[in-house]
Amino acid sequence: MNLQQIGQQAKDASYELAITDTTTKNAALEAIAIELEVNVAEIVAANNKDIEAGKAAGLTDALLDRLLLNEERLAGVIADLRSVIGLADPVGEEFDGKVLENGLKLCKRRVPVGVLGVIYEARPNVTIDIAALSLKTGNASILRGGKETINSNLVLVKLIQAALEKVGLPTTSVQYIENTDRALVGELLKLDKYVDMIIPRGNSGLQKFCKENSTIPVIIGGIGICHLFAEKTVNVEKALVIIENAKVQRPSVCNALDTLLVDADIAEIFLPKLAAHLLPLGVTLVAEEKAKAILGDDAQLAQEGDFSREWLSLNLGVKVVADLSEALSHIREHSSEHSDGILTNDFTIANKFINAVNSAAVYVNTSTRFTDGSQFGLGAEVAVSTQKLHARGPMGLPELTTYKWIGIGDNLIRS
Amino acid sequence: MNLQQIGQQAKDASYELAITDTTTKNAALEAIAIELEVNVAEIVAANNKDIEAGKAAGLTDALLDRLLLNEERLAGVIADLRSVIGLADPVGEEFDGKVLENGLKLCKRRVPVGVLGVIYEARPNVTIDIAALSLKTGNASILRGGKETINSNLVLVKLIQAALEKVGLPTTSVQYIENTDRALVGELLKLDKYVDMIIPRGNSGLQKFCKENSTIPVIIGGIGICHLFAEKTVNVEKALVIIENAKVQRPSVCNALDTLLVDADIAEIFLPKLAAHLLPLGVTLVAEEKAKAILGDDAQLAQEGDFSREWLSLNLGVKVVADLSEALSHIREHSSEHSDGILTNDFTIANKFINAVNSAAVYVNTSTRFTDGSQFGLGAEVAVSTQKLHARGPMGLPELTTYKWIGIGDNLIRS
Repeated sequence: MNLQQIGQQAKDASYELAITDTTTKNAALEAIAIELEVNVAEIVAANNKDIEAGKAAGLTDALLDRLLLNEERLAGVIADLRSVIGLADPVGEEFDGKVLENGLKLCKRRVPVGVLGVIYEARPNVTIDIAALSLKTGNASILRGGKETINSNLVLVKLIQAALEKVGLPTTSVQYIENTDRALVGELLKLDKYVDMIIPRGNSGLQKFCKENSTIPVIIGGIGICHLFAEKTVNVEKALVIIENAKVQRPSVCNALDTLLVDADIAEIFLPKLAAHLLPLGVTLVAEEKAKAILGDDAQLAQEGDFSREWLSLNLGVKVVADLSEALSHIREHSSEHSDGILTNDFTIANKFINAVNSAAVYVNTSTRFTDGSQFGLGAEVAVSTQKLHARGPMGLPELTTYKWIGIGDNLIRS
Repeated sequence: MNLQQIGQQAKDASYELAITDTTTKNAALEAIAIELEVNVAEIVAANNKDIEAGKAAGLTDALLDRLLLNEERLAGVIADLRSVIGLADPVGEEFDGKVLENGLKLCKRRVPVGVLGVIYEARPNVTIDIAALSLKTGNASILRGGKETINSNLVLVKLIQAALEKVGLPTTSVQYIENTDRALVGELLKLDKYVDMIIPRGNSGLQKFCKENSTIPVIIGGIGICHLFAEKTVNVEKALVIIENAKVQRPSVCNALDTLLVDADIAEIFLPKLAAHLLPLGVTLVAEEKAKAILGDDAQLAQEGDFSREWLSLNLGVKVVADLSEALSHIREHSSEHSDGILTNDFTIANKFINAVNSAAVYVNTSTRFTDGSQFGLGAEVAVSTQKLHARGPMGLPELTTYKWIGIGDNLIRS
C-alpha cells in the first residue's frame, strides 16, 4: 500500500463522511468503544510487546510510562471516547447568512476540513483520540504514530476499522501508515493532492521538520516557552502561589512556566521569597546576572540560550527587568507565543500588557497552566496551536472544520 | 538592505500598528490619498518608464494595459483607498466571552495577524490596495511586485512612507523589496521568524512555488477552474443566460466559467441551443466525445488536460454526464474548489449538490461570477482563497486578523 493510494482512499472516504449525519458518526464512536472493551486483552498484549521492545532498546522510564496502555488507562481512553459522543457536532452550522441587494441568498456553512494527516509520538491513546475527533467532525484521517508504539497502534486501528465497517462507514476513514521508515513522514507532507491539514503532535524538531517540508498547511503548536512578569504592584504572597502552580504542578507540559520576569523595583524583596518558596519544592532557579546577584547560591547562572528553551522540567529561568517595556521586549524575543501573563495590581499596566503581548493566551493574575481545551471548556482538545492562522490556542472540534459559501439565486446573473 | 533587516523592521512596526487606534490608521490612509493626489505627475512619469520598458521588452498589449497607471486609473485607486477608510475596523472585537466555573474570565480578541508578505505581478494598483488593507487591519506588510512595474511601485511606496511619517507611524509599516532578483521571493518565503502570512497574487506557477517553498502559512487562491452542471430539470433559456454571464462577461478572471457539464437526458436538446447562443458571442466550445458527437462542427474536440485548465479566455469546456453522480466525480477531479454551481429545478438534487461539492463557493441557479469581495458585500477583497484553512472564498478585512485568548483571574491557579 503506497501513500498515494492511502491518500486517494482517504479523500474518497472524506466525501462520504462529509455527508454522514451525526447519529451515524456517534454510532461509529460507540462501536469503537465497544471494540476496545471487547478486545482489551489483545490491546494490552500488543502494548506489552511495545513495552518489552522499548525496554530492550533502553528507553527511559518516563518514555516507557508514556507508551504504557494498561487496562486502567484503556478505560480512561474509552471514557474520553464516549464523552466525544456527547459533544455538539459543529458540522452543518450556517452563519453570516444574508440576502444581498441583488437577491443572492448567501451564507457560510461549516463543513469538515477533509483529510487530516496527524503525526505523533509515543502515547498510543492519541490514535483513539484523533480518530474519534476526526470522525466526529466528518474528517478522514491518516495517522502516523511513533515506531515505539507500532504494535499497539496497529491493533487499535484494526479495531477502529472493524467498528467503522459495522456501522457501514468506509474503513478507509481512519488509516495508519504502517511502514515505520521516517521517509514516509516526508512523503505524507507532500501529499497535498489529498491531505488538507497536517497536525504534528510532538517535539520542536518534528514541528520544524513539518514547517520546512510540508506543502500542506501545518498546525504548529504544543511548544510553550511561557512567561510570567511579576510587576512592582503585585501582591507577593499571591504571586508566589500562582508561580508555584505554573511551574510545579506539571512541569513536563507545554503550558508550564519557563521564565519569570521580575520588576527591578521589587527584585530585592521578591527574589529571596521566591527562592524560599520554590527551592523546597525541587525547583532550580536559572538566573541572569542581575537576578543571580540577588539570589546568590540559591540560583545558577543562566547560559546562552537558556531563555529560549522550553524547560519541561523543574528549572525556572529568572530575569530582572527595568519595567514593562523591557518585559515586553524579552517576551517578544523569547516567547513561543503560547501562554504569557502578568502578575500585577495596576489596572493600566495590566491592560497595556494584554494589548501588547501577542500570544495565543494572555493572562492577568492567572496561572499559565489554564491553556488547555478542557480548562477552556472546549470539551476536547486536538492540539494547542501557536500559529496565527486558522486557530490559536486550544483547538476543539470547530477548529477541525472549515466553511464554504453557499449562494442561491433565482437565475441570477452579475450585472 | 537585506531581507532579515526588512523582516525585523516589519515585525517591530507590527507591534506599534497593533496598538494603533482606528482614527490614526484612517488618518494614515487619508494621508496616502493626499500624497497620491499631490504627486500624480511623478507617478505617471514613473509608470511611463515601466510602459516604455515593457514595450521595448515586447510585452503583449494585454499585459501593457495591466501595467498602465494613468491619471484616470489613479483617481480610481484613490477612491478605493478612501472607501477603505469608511470600512469597519475589525481589530479589537471581543467574542466568545465567558466566565468559567473556576472564575476565569475568558474571551477571544480579534488582533492583527502581524506581518504580511505579499507577492504580486503586473498591476501597480495592488501596491496601494494591499498597503491600505494591511494598515487598516494593523498589519505591517512586505511587498514584492513584478519587475515590470518596479518604477511605478518604488514611487508609490515612497509616497506611502512619506504619508506614514506625516501621521507619526513607522515608515517601515509598508516596505518594498526593491531587488528584482527572483531569488528574493524564495528568501521571503523562509522568513518565518518575522512574517506571519504569505499572500501570492499571481498565476498558478507562483502559487505552486509558494506552496512548495514557504515555511510561512500561504493563502493559496485566485485560480478558478469553475463548473456549472446543467441538470435535466433546468429551464434551458434561463440556464443559457447564466452560462453566458459566467463565461462571457469577463473571461479573463478567476470566477469565470471553465467547464459546463450537461445532463445526458437533455444533451441532444440543450447543446445545439448552447452553440446557437454562445458561438455568436465568440465562445469556442471544447467538447469531450459525447458532446462533440452532438455539437459536430460547432465544437472542437477536447484534448488531454483541457478539463484541468483555467481557460482565462472565451473557450468553454463541455462534457455530457450521465447524472449528478458523474457530475460530482468530474468536479471533484477537476475543480480548483473556487466556484462551482448547479442549474436545476429539482429541490432534492440541488441540495445534494450543495452538500456534496466542497468548493469555496457553491451556487444554485446563479452565475459563478459572483465570487468576489464586493459582490459578497465584504467592502474589500484581499484575495480569493481556495484553500480550506483560515479563510475560504473572498477575503475581506477580518480575514487579515487572527485572535488571541485573554484570561483574567483573581489570583487564579489550576487545581
